[in-house]
Amino acid sequence: MTAPLPYMPAIGKAVVRKIAVAGRRPLLDLSLNESSHGASPLAVAAATARCQRLMRYPDPASTELRQAIGRRYDLPPDDLVCGNGSEELLDIIGRLYARPGDEILFSDHGFLQFAIVALRVGATPVRAAECGLTADVDALLAAVSHRTRILFLANPNNPTGTHVGAAELRRLRDGLPGDVVLVIDSAYAEYVDAPGYSAGHELVEGTDNVIVTRTFSKAFGLAALRVGWAHCPPAMSAVLNRMRGIGNVNAIAQATAAAALDDLGFIARVRDETARERARVSVALAGLGLEVVPSVTNFVIARFSSGSNRGAAAAIGHLAGRDIVVRAVDDYDLPDHLRITIGLPAENDRLIEGLASLHP
Amino acid sequence: MTAPLPYMPAIGKAVVRKIAVAGRRPLLDLSLNESSHGASPLAVAAATARCQRLMRYPDPASTELRQAIGRRYDLPPDDLVCGNGSEELLDIIGRLYARPGDEILFSDHGFLQFAIVALRVGATPVRAAECGLTADVDALLAAVSHRTRILFLANPNNPTGTHVGAAELRRLRDGLPGDVVLVIDSAYAEYVDAPGYSAGHELVEGTDNVIVTRTFSKAFGLAALRVGWAHCPPAMSAVLNRMRGIGNVNAIAQATAAAALDDLGFIARVRDETARERARVSVALAGLGLEVVPSVTNFVIARFSSGSNRGAAAAIGHLAGRDIVVRAVDDYDLPDHLRITIGLPAENDRLIEGLASLHP
Repeated sequence: MTAPLPYMPAIGKAVVRKIAVAGRRPLLDLSLNESSHGASPLAVAAATARCQRLMRYPDPASTELRQAIGRRYDLPPDDLVCGNGSEELLDIIGRLYARPGDEILFSDHGFLQFAIVALRVGATPVRAAECGLTADVDALLAAVSHRTRILFLANPNNPTGTHVGAAELRRLRDGLPGDVVLVIDSAYAEYVDAPGYSAGHELVEGTDNVIVTRTFSKAFGLAALRVGWAHCPPAMSAVLNRMRGIGNVNAIAQATAAAALDDLGFIARVRDETARERARVSVALAGLGLEVVPSVTNFVIARFSSGSNRGAAAAIGHLAGRDIVVRAVDDYDLPDHLRITIGLPAENDRLIEGLASLHP
Repeated sequence: MTAPLPYMPAIGKAVVRKIAVAGRRPLLDLSLNESSHGASPLAVAAATARCQRLMRYPDPASTELRQAIGRRYDLPPDDLVCGNGSEELLDIIGRLYARPGDEILFSDHGFLQFAIVALRVGATPVRAAECGLTADVDALLAAVSHRTRILFLANPNNPTGTHVGAAELRRLRDGLPGDVVLVIDSAYAEYVDAPGYSAGHELVEGTDNVIVTRTFSKAFGLAALRVGWAHCPPAMSAVLNRMRGIGNVNAIAQATAAAALDDLGFIARVRDETARERARVSVALAGLGLEVVPSVTNFVIARFSSGSNRGAAAAIGHLAGRDIVVRAVDDYDLPDHLRITIGLPAENDRLIEGLASLHP
C-alpha cells in the first residue's frame, strides 16, 4: 500500500477526540461554545428559502456574501475570502505558507486547530509561554526564529477566553519579521465588550503579511452551516482563492450568512445577554471555590481542585449523570480545568445547581 | 511578503474560469450539469427541518449519513468518508499520496479537477492518450512510471460523457502496481444504464489501493449542498479522516443527503427521463450536422464546424443571445466542442431551436 505522509499519525488523537465529544447530543450541551440564542429569524428565513433550489450549485466566489460582509464591516469585498468554516481557511494558510521543517508559532494554550494545521503540513508547532493563561506578546516575539513562517493568534483565545488589547496586537505585528504571516483568529470578536479590544482588521491594511479570520459559527448562531471568512491583503486573497475549494461554501450557508448580517440588533442582544450571564456564572462558580479565568467570550474555563473527588474528572462525570456536558481541556494540558459554554439563564441555573451539588 | 509555494500560479486560470462560468445565472443554464429534475421532496423536507437548529454544529463524523449510504449501497459505514463535495476528497487524496516530483496520471480529457489537485500538491500531471474520447486502459497502464502515485479515472468522464466497462476497469486495477492509488470518480454513476458498467465498488474490497468517489450533486439534485463521499479500504478511510476538515460536511447537507437516499423511485425516474431526453437531444443535434459523442450521463458534448461562423464560439454567442448558456470546453483542449446539460423536455426544445436557428 502507498504510505501516507509520515507526519500523519500524530494528528489522529486530537481529531478523534473532537469527534467523540461532538457526536454526543445530551439534553444540555455546554461543550462546544455554540450559541444558545440560536440564529436570527432573518437568517432562518433565508436558509429555508434557498432550500427550494437545492439542485443549483453555490456561487464559487461567494460574491453576495462577500459584498454583505464588506458593507457590514466596511472592508473591500475583493480582500475577503470565504471558507467552509474558518477551519478551511486556517488549513489553506498552512498549506500555502509553511513546509516541512518550517515552524508555526502560537501561544501555549492556543486553539488546538493551530497544531493540527502545523502537523498536517509537516511543520513544527512551537508554543510560546503565556502570562496568566493570556498570550504574551514579548514571549511570542522572542520565540520567532528564522524558521518561523506563520504566527497564529486566537484573540480572544479558545479555550482560555482571554485576549490581548489592540495596542499589544499592533506591537506584535510591528515586531514581526516581514516574512512571517500573522493570522489573527477573531472567532469570538462579536462577544467582546472589553475596552481597547480590536478584531485586528486595521492591521491588515497597508501590510502584506496579516490575515484576520472570522466565523459565523459563534455569535451569529450558524454553526450548522460552516461559514468563515478571512480579511487579507489583496495579494494574499488572490493566492488563498486558488487553494481553497472551488465550491467550498455551500449555497444555503452563503445565503443565510448574508441575511444574518442584516440583523444588527440580534447580535447586540446576543452580546449583551451573554455578557450578563457570563458575569453571573463566573461569580457563582467562584462562590463554589473554583478559580474562574476572566473571559470576554461565550464560555469560561474554571479550575477545579486537583486530583480530589471534587476535581475536573469527577465534575464531568457528575454533570454527565445530570445530562449536562462540558468540555474537558486536558488535551490543552489543562487537566484541572473545564470549559463551560454560557447558555440561556435557565440553562446556566441548571449548570450551577449541578456543580453546587458536587461542591456542597 | 512570504512567497506562496512556487507551483501556485499555474492553477490560477482554471479556477478563475470555472468561477466566471458559474457566476452567471441565465434563464436556461445548461453549463454546469446540474439536475433539471431538482431534489426529492423528502430531501427538501429534511433540509428545511434542519434549518431550525442552525446554531448546532454538524456531526463531525457524518455518522447518520454514512449509515444511510451504507444501507443504500450495501457498504460498511466505517469504509466511507464524506466530504465537502467529492472535490474535497480528491484534494485530500492528492495531499496524502503525492508529493512534489511525483506524477498523477489521468486520461487525456479527464476531469479538470485532477490537474488542479496535481498542481496544488506540486506533482506533475500526466495525461494518457484516449481512444475515441474514451479512456484507454492500455494507454493508462503504459503511462505508469516509477513516479506515478495516483491514477484518477472519472467513469463516466466529464466532459466527454464516455465510460469504460467493469471488465476494463478490473483490468486497469489488476495491471497497476500496488503502490499506485487508483481513484475511480463515479460522480455520474446514477445516470448510467449501459450494460457492463460498474461504479467500481467491487474493486475496493480486498485491495488496499482503490478508492471510489461519489456525489450527491448530480442525479440526487443536491449541488447546492456540496456532499460527496469516498468508499475506501479501512486503512485509507482512517487516514482520509485525519486529513479532511473536522467539520467538513455542513449539517443541512448531512441531513438532506441521508433523506434523499430514501427516495429510490426518484432517482429511477431521473435516470429514465434523462436517458430518454439524452437520446432525443443527441439525435436532434446530429440532425443539425453536429458530431455528438455518445454519452451515458446527463450531458453530451458535440463537435461544431471548426473556425466557421457555425463553430463552437459562434454557437455560444448565439445561444447567449437567447439566454441559454452551455459550456465551452477549450480548457480541455476541445475548442470545437461544447458541453450541453440535458434539461427537461421543454428546456431541451429551447436548446434545439436555438441551435437550429444557427444551423438553418
